Amino acid sequence: MHNCGNIAIIGGGSWATAIAKVVVKHTRHIGWYMRRDDRIADFKRLGHNPAYLTTALFNVNEIDFSSDINRIAHDYDTLVFVTPSPYLKNHLKKLHTPLYDKFIVTAIKGIVPDENLVVSEYFHRVWEVPYAHLACIGGPSHSEEIVLERLTYLTIACADAEKAQAFADVVAGEYIKTKTSADIVGIEYAAVLKNVYAIAAGICNGLKYGDNFQAVLLSNAIQEMNRFLTAVYPAQRSIDDSVYLGDLLVTGYSKFSRNRTFGKMIGKGYSVKSAQIEMEMIAEGYFGTKCMKEINSQIHVEMPILDAVYNILYARSNPQIEIKLLTESFR
Amino acid sequence: MHNCGNIAIIGGGSWATAIAKVVVKHTRHIGWYMRRDDRIADFKRLGHNPAYLTTALFNVNEIDFSSDINRIAHDYDTLVFVTPSPYLKNHLKKLHTPLYDKFIVTAIKGIVPDENLVVSEYFHRVWEVPYAHLACIGGPSHSEEIVLERLTYLTIACADAEKAQAFADVVAGEYIKTKTSADIVGIEYAAVLKNVYAIAAGICNGLKYGDNFQAVLLSNAIQEMNRFLTAVYPAQRSIDDSVYLGDLLVTGYSKFSRNRTFGKMIGKGYSVKSAQIEMEMIAEGYFGTKCMKEINSQIHVEMPILDAVYNILYARSNPQIEIKLLTESFR
Repeated sequence: MHNCGNIAIIGGGSWATAIAKVVVKHTRHIGWYMRRDDRIADFKRLGHNPAYLTTALFNVNEIDFSSDINRIAHDYDTLVFVTPSPYLKNHLKKLHTPLYDKFIVTAIKGIVPDENLVVSEYFHRVWEVPYAHLACIGGPSHSEEIVLERLTYLTIACADAEKAQAFADVVAGEYIKTKTSADIVGIEYAAVLKNVYAIAAGICNGLKYGDNFQAVLLSNAIQEMNRFLTAVYPAQRSIDDSVYLGDLLVTGYSKFSRNRTFGKMIGKGYSVKSAQIEMEMIAEGYFGTKCMKEINSQIHVEMPILDAVYNILYARSNPQIEIKLLTESFR
Repeated sequence: MHNCGNIAIIGGGSWATAIAKVVVKHTRHIGWYMRRDDRIADFKRLGHNPAYLTTALFNVNEIDFSSDINRIAHDYDTLVFVTPSPYLKNHLKKLHTPLYDKFIVTAIKGIVPDENLVVSEYFHRVWEVPYAHLACIGGPSHSEEIVLERLTYLTIACADAEKAQAFADVVAGEYIKTKTSADIVGIEYAAVLKNVYAIAAGICNGLKYGDNFQAVLLSNAIQEMNRFLTAVYPAQRSIDDSVYLGDLLVTGYSKFSRNRTFGKMIGKGYSVKSAQIEMEMIAEGYFGTKCMKEINSQIHVEMPILDAVYNILYARSNPQIEIKLLTESFR
C-alpha cells in the first residue's frame, strides 16, 4: 500500500485553501508554498487565508508555510499543485529541485500555455515525472461548498491504482467521498472543456436564451466533450460519471462561476477586454478556449461549441450571429 | 408525405396552451377541447387562457372550442393529448368515438394509473391505435419559455418516420426547432422519470445539500434512467441527447418546477399531505414515483434514486436517513 508521506500544497487561491483544509484535517501537518511573504504573515496572524475563503479557519501550528518553493519541494514527498494554469510555469521557473521521485498531484484545471499540454502531461514531459507518480483531482467541487462542509464527491486519478487510493484516503472524510480512476488525461481535459462550456452558457444567458436552450446547450456540450476525449485519449470511461458530467453541470449552472459570469458579460455586449477589466481577473476558460482550439486544430474533432466560443473571444465574431449559427448545429 | 389534417388539442393547462399557440401559428385553425364551458367562455371573451399562461394571446376566431370531446374527436384528424396523466382516463370515459384511425400525439408527461402504462402504450392497448398512428412530444420545454418565444428544441417520436416529420413540420418555427425519433416509449418513460428525479433534487435541496451534490445526483440520475430504458425498451439511443438529458436538466435545475418545489418542501420537513395542500396541486412526479416503482418491481433494474423517493413519499421513511443511504450508493 502506497503511503503519501508528507504532503505540501503549492498555491494560495481558494481551491488550494479548500484542499489544504481537507488534507490537514487528516494529516495534522502540511507544507504550504505561497508566493507572497506578506500573505503568509497575514495568514499566520489571522488563522485563515487573508484573501480567499476567509471563513475557513486553520490551526497554523499544523502548517509549515514557505515562500521558498525549493525548500517545500525538497522537504515533502507529495506535492499538490493548485495554481492557476497560466502561472504554473512562472512558479516552476524558480524550482531546481528534481520532481521525478515525488508524488505529484495536480488540482489545476487548465492547460499549460505554449506547450498546450494538460498539467500531468507537462510534468511528465518537461519534469520527467513518471505517470505512476502523477495524479489529478477532479469532480464537481465548488471550493466554497467544501469549506461549508457540504457533501462533495472527488475523483482521484492515477495510472497507479494504489497511489490513487492512497491519496483518496487522505482527502476522504465525513463530507468528502472519493472514487479513483485511471483516466488522468481525460479528467484533466474535461476540467478544461467545462470552463469553455461555462463561458458558452454565460454568453447564451447574456443573449437572453432561456433555460430550455441552456439544457440543450449542456446536452450538446457533454456529447462534444465525449467526442474529444474519445479521440484524444480512448479509454473505458462513462462520460455521465460525476467527474465529467457532474463537473460540467456544477460549473455550467453556477451563478458564481467566473467563467459563466465572463461569458454573460460578453453576451450582454461587453468587449473581451472590458469584461476582463470589470471582473478584475481573467476567467481561466478564456485561456483554455485558445489552448483547446489549438490542440483540436491537430486532431479535427467536431467541436462546434468550442469553435463558437473561440470565434467570439478571439476572432471578434458577433456573439449573436455566432450563437445563432451554433443553434443550427444542435441536436 | 403524411399530412396531419385538422389538428385538435385535448386539455386546457399551460403545456396545452403553449402547444396550441405553436400549432395555430402554423395552421391558422385548431380544434380545442376543454372540460369546462365557463373556461371556454372566458377564453373567448379575454382572448387568452383565463387560468394558464395568460400573456399568450390568441385570435379566438382561429379556434374551434368545445367541451364535447366526442365532437372534437370526430371532427379532427390529429388529436394532441395534453392533460395531466391522472385525469386522462376520466376524459376518455366520455369518449365513444373510435380512435384507431386518428393520428394521436401525446404530450402527456406521465403514466396512466392502474394500467401502469406510458400513454402511447395505453392508447395502443386500450384504444387499439396502431403504433404507426401514435406519436409523442418530448424535449426540454418549460411552456412559459415557449410562450416567451425563447428558443426551444422539441423531439417528435413516432414509429412512422414520415408522420413524425409531418407533425414536426407543424410545430417547427422561428423559435421552435424540431428533430424526430422512433423512440416513443423511451422518451415517454424519460419524461416520467425526470419528474421523479426533480423531486429527489428538491428533497436534497431542502435538506441543505449543495450544488456539488446536486451535480452528482443528476449525473447518477441520467445513468439510472439509461439503465431503466435499456432494460425496458432496448433501442439505439444516446441518453445524452437533449430529449433525455436536457429534459432532466431543465426540470432538475428549475426553480419553477412543481416537482422540485414539492420535493424541497418534503426535504424541509413538511409531510407529503401538507406539502400537497400548501402547493394547492399535486406534483405529477408524486404519481409517477409510485407507477415507476410498480413497473420496476417486475423488471428489477437497479434504481436507488427512485427507491429513495418512493420510500420517502410512500413508506414514510425519514428523508434525511434515506438520502444519506442514497449518497453511499453514488459514484
